[in-house]
Amino acid sequence: MTRQSRQTLNRSEQADWLRLIRSENVGPITFFHLVQYYGSAGAALEALPALAARGGKRKIKICPEEVVERELARIEEIGATLIAHGEPDYPRALGAIEDAPPLIMRLGHGDLLERPLVAIVGARNASSNGRRLASQLAADLGAAGMTVVSGMARGIDTAAHNGALESGTAAVVAGGIDVVYPAENQALYDDIVARGVVLSESPPGMEPIARHFPRRNRLVSGLSLGVVVVEAAPRSGSLITARIALEQGREVFAVPGSPLDPRARGANNLIRQGATLTESIEDVLAVISDQMIRSLEDPSGSSFDPPPGSPPPELQSAGELDAARKNIIELLSPSPSPVDELIRECQVSAALVAVVLLELELAGRIERHPGGRVSLIVE
Amino acid sequence: MTRQSRQTLNRSEQADWLRLIRSENVGPITFFHLVQYYGSAGAALEALPALAARGGKRKIKICPEEVVERELARIEEIGATLIAHGEPDYPRALGAIEDAPPLIMRLGHGDLLERPLVAIVGARNASSNGRRLASQLAADLGAAGMTVVSGMARGIDTAAHNGALESGTAAVVAGGIDVVYPAENQALYDDIVARGVVLSESPPGMEPIARHFPRRNRLVSGLSLGVVVVEAAPRSGSLITARIALEQGREVFAVPGSPLDPRARGANNLIRQGATLTESIEDVLAVISDQMIRSLEDPSGSSFDPPPGSPPPELQSAGELDAARKNIIELLSPSPSPVDELIRECQVSAALVAVVLLELELAGRIERHPGGRVSLIVE
Repeated sequence: MTRQSRQTLNRSEQADWLRLIRSENVGPITFFHLVQYYGSAGAALEALPALAARGGKRKIKICPEEVVERELARIEEIGATLIAHGEPDYPRALGAIEDAPPLIMRLGHGDLLERPLVAIVGARNASSNGRRLASQLAADLGAAGMTVVSGMARGIDTAAHNGALESGTAAVVAGGIDVVYPAENQALYDDIVARGVVLSESPPGMEPIARHFPRRNRLVSGLSLGVVVVEAAPRSGSLITARIALEQGREVFAVPGSPLDPRARGANNLIRQGATLTESIEDVLAVISDQMIRSLEDPSGSSFDPPPGSPPPELQSAGELDAARKNIIELLSPSPSPVDELIRECQVSAALVAVVLLELELAGRIERHPGGRVSLIVE
Repeated sequence: MTRQSRQTLNRSEQADWLRLIRSENVGPITFFHLVQYYGSAGAALEALPALAARGGKRKIKICPEEVVERELARIEEIGATLIAHGEPDYPRALGAIEDAPPLIMRLGHGDLLERPLVAIVGARNASSNGRRLASQLAADLGAAGMTVVSGMARGIDTAAHNGALESGTAAVVAGGIDVVYPAENQALYDDIVARGVVLSESPPGMEPIARHFPRRNRLVSGLSLGVVVVEAAPRSGSLITARIALEQGREVFAVPGSPLDPRARGANNLIRQGATLTESIEDVLAVISDQMIRSLEDPSGSSFDPPPGSPPPELQSAGELDAARKNIIELLSPSPSPVDELIRECQVSAALVAVVLLELELAGRIERHPGGRVSLIVE
């Protein structure tokens, strides 16, 4: 693998990035904080044990080098491409979300990710009408020059991928990029690898488990200008995707249905809450304007913000850190509170609060939430 | 018929009102202008020929006294009640619309018109699901203490009346109050007369014709706090009712449906345009708040404005009138223009413009439109 652009990682940097994101308690937001604080993933890896210890954790599990080497070898073997945040191939809209994955794997036709992307999601136990609609919407979006994103689940996802197979579709999988789930979608997976594109942030070979799906959903919406919800039960994964899409500043579209059809309830509710009522792609195109598409194509004039930065590292005395840590833990609770508020209430510098939060996160004592919020993890 | 309240018309006034509204080119808006200008319907009837002549019409057809006497006798024979605008029994919300009928006939239980009224309208060729929904919504609105208004047409109207038969329903018919249309609804009509209430502004015995239906629709929405549209094809009568409801300042509710169902298109479009997405009466009750209901019950604190008044009559010289008439005719066109604008452009008094418009209307040369607009009738 040759990397000619200055904006791409070399093999050793790739290994460091992979090792850092695969280490214990390092989520995407923490990852970027660490790299910004320490200048590189390699330096962050060295600092990790001390940071975690200050947060109260004796032995943080750092991903072993050989695990990362095996993962890199496996990626190459599959024929997948590893893309780092900030590299030219990294999908632009995805790069703008708060918790963008530092690294993603891509299998298939990467050029499909340079078109405007629109997601279609919905119920796994969709009605035949719902599937028909999803498939038609996908085909029409494809004909309009867009790539259709979905999660390769049963029902609506499958119908959407099938509808857009000819024009181009992107599947985001929750497990490893080489793991077909559900197994019945093997033929669809093969088709998408051959004619579309598959994406994953998980290690190859990993079987998806329940808690991976919401994480995957943030990629489905994060890749996309908007998300179309076709059939969704109340409290379903599709509704979570819609909520995440809103948090990410993406458009939400919902296909209405009769009140007599329980599968329409989720989408009808979304419309009630302000989602765009969608009967055909005209409704989608009316919202996803040329302007949005242009802002995607032109990296200078963007409607997407880069992930939030952190102040540069400062030397803090151990005393200062201890006092701030105690103060912050007292202020935190199991319900998420904004970091801004913490800074105001602590009356210490934002940089100091950031360092303390980083330590606590690495120690597994706090959790990050979208919108710059953190909560205390109660054992 | 004894009338004890000072606010009710005596028999002779009733005859004059009926004669005036049944005369050529006298619509509801003109009716109220005339009564305000001349102090009574009787005086207006005397002034009518001269006014029409000044507008350019030689012989205006004034309804003969014997026709009115026959109508009054027939109303009594049927057992219907004639209610004049301004009388205590006149439905309060209806009285507030710009083109409220000066007189309405009522058959059945008048007390049902004192509850909060909500209309349910929709397609004549409704699906069985649509009918089921309409009937359920009607029953639920009835159980919540509301009277369900509809137009006694086939399909949704019939289902709505049936659903609310026990709790109380109001049918507004386009023809005479004693004319059952469609004929297949004879049993429903009998049920509504026995347990609900029927309303009409047409003379008894009159068969409804196409142009009566939009006029009837303004009464359906005018009586109601809001209109629920259940199934409606694009460009259907139900959508006209929804548009009129908005012009009258009433709420519009629409039941969504699948894009695959053509009968859902009208309602989905209404939602897109801002109607409240409605799956159950919870959606209706959330909008039609207690406050709106109270304002209906309490005649002092009202959210309904009285119909627009006119300035008192003034003596105008024939020369002034001729000049203004010429000016106004030149300014008018077949597309409706606001009267306010005419007044500004003519640079004569509002009273003078009002008199000229009255003359022209009686002469059949202009037409009134909602929102205080008038257009020229081109022969």
